[in-house]
Amino acid sequence: MTKQQEVPKDGSNDSGEVQVKNPHLNEQIDDVLYHFGLARSDTNFPELFGDVKYVCTGGSPTRIKMYAELFSQDSGLPLSQNLSRSDRFVMFKTGAILWVNHGMGVPSMSIMLNECIKLLHYAHARDVSFIRIGTSGGIDVLPGTVVVSNGTLNGLFEEAHTQYINGKIVKREAKLNPELAKELYNSGVSENLPVAHGKTLCADDFYEGQMRLDGAFCEYDVNEKADFIARLKDNGVRNIEMEATGFASFTTRANVKGAIICVALLNRLNGDQVTLDKATYIDYELRPFKLVSSFLRGKIAQMI
Amino acid sequence: MTKQQEVPKDGSNDSGEVQVKNPHLNEQIDDVLYHFGLARSDTNFPELFGDVKYVCTGGSPTRIKMYAELFSQDSGLPLSQNLSRSDRFVMFKTGAILWVNHGMGVPSMSIMLNECIKLLHYAHARDVSFIRIGTSGGIDVLPGTVVVSNGTLNGLFEEAHTQYINGKIVKREAKLNPELAKELYNSGVSENLPVAHGKTLCADDFYEGQMRLDGAFCEYDVNEKADFIARLKDNGVRNIEMEATGFASFTTRANVKGAIICVALLNRLNGDQVTLDKATYIDYELRPFKLVSSFLRGKIAQMI
Repeated sequence: MTKQQEVPKDGSNDSGEVQVKNPHLNEQIDDVLYHFGLARSDTNFPELFGDVKYVCTGGSPTRIKMYAELFSQDSGLPLSQNLSRSDRFVMFKTGAILWVNHGMGVPSMSIMLNECIKLLHYAHARDVSFIRIGTSGGIDVLPGTVVVSNGTLNGLFEEAHTQYINGKIVKREAKLNPELAKELYNSGVSENLPVAHGKTLCADDFYEGQMRLDGAFCEYDVNEKADFIARLKDNGVRNIEMEATGFASFTTRANVKGAIICVALLNRLNGDQVTLDKATYIDYELRPFKLVSSFLRGKIAQMI
Repeated sequence: MTKQQEVPKDGSNDSGEVQVKNPHLNEQIDDVLYHFGLARSDTNFPELFGDVKYVCTGGSPTRIKMYAELFSQDSGLPLSQNLSRSDRFVMFKTGAILWVNHGMGVPSMSIMLNECIKLLHYAHARDVSFIRIGTSGGIDVLPGTVVVSNGTLNGLFEEAHTQYINGKIVKREAKLNPELAKELYNSGVSENLPVAHGKTLCADDFYEGQMRLDGAFCEYDVNEKADFIARLKDNGVRNIEMEATGFASFTTRANVKGAIICVALLNRLNGDQVTLDKATYIDYELRPFKLVSSFLRGKIAQMI
């Protein structure tokens, strides 16, 4: 087992390593990353993951596997088997790029991020960026537009991630990396994809939290919904999903760059239901991948 | 397509049907349950799901499939294929019992519950109970104890589920059905399983929200953690998981009985890491299933 690097009390670290900020980890002999089914005592993290520079993540396990397979084809890099030994998440590797799914919503994603950040820290991975590649509901953008997030808002229109710790509310800054966002946006332009910059609203559910009119429960009317969507638009919001503030907060705390690239499956100004035919859905689902694949292949070319 | 029953404006309904409380659904010609990949226009919900009396749910797709297979063996009822056409959730049926997974955390589960409640409403299913069968961290109970929840608390120690709707905080009552809990507890006793009654804390993450010392981030010390666990114990909490308040709130709103049965994988008074060997894990994982299987077989015998 690799000896773990000591964690400075204040979490400071100039080495570019992925940072954990938990002094108690130094006192643990082993660490079981329960939701990956991997432990320091049974897996050589530095050997397997020490070279990771990009973590690409998204909700669906099937889609992440498909993206990893396609990227292996695009880049010529060999695809690993599923490196997760638990059914909670899947994890694939193509060279310096790790592909992991996160499920739906911040709580599910927070489990993956906690364990992935610890894994990369134990692996001594350096200068790592996390890119979330997802689907979303668009605000005043055409369906199929790829939104590169330049900010995140929670359900109270704050640029913050809310946690409940020790019976109290803790709010944390939820900012994304502006340079990484700009680079990814430019990759989208160069791939001739419809791209837009904008803020991303992080909702805690798909229905009432996004003011859809088609959930099992709805206590607001059409006008209140329209006012909410208009208010989002006025605040610079271009899409809604369910992970943005948590993703921004965790990546900032871990000293890694974070970016969010989501395709809009619909324009919420025009409706709530996702009713795309299969061919259109596959086209849209591939757009944020094409953007990220182009970006990553450029980065790999620079590494050689 | 079956004509949808009109939803009374106040949501009142004495028929025992699963209730949606959304008048806008009456105006929709179709309804796409996007995360199941099922629509009213392409699936005969009354024929497929009209007989459902129990919905058994839990986080992991593999575990729910295993439970459905085992129950098919225990009961002699045939097992359906996976009825979900999306990779977000799996769904199996054995007679009047539906088995669906919900992922991790309230946001993921809320998507499943919204769409499952609509599905059962469209199916005209009556007198339905939802049972969540999960794993949890125990508070002052031996590992392997099956906790039958008699109440739920959120991260602020309130018996409430918090939503963000229209930029505002909405708190909803989060109560479980006491009679169903009592029946399930008695089934555990009759199966000679170690069972306990107690409240369940619903955390929004696995690490800081549960005051674990083994996450990527930790800003509290050992004593603060001990005080938190002691406070939980004093409040009658016997386990921590990540769905309880949302589950209690949604089932109450939908006019269905709700119960939560979770095995404790560890006693949080003694540690944070889940380090069970595989045989013990499988034993523990099967205990809440054995309880629920015994309960359901008794109910099926009464139906015949």
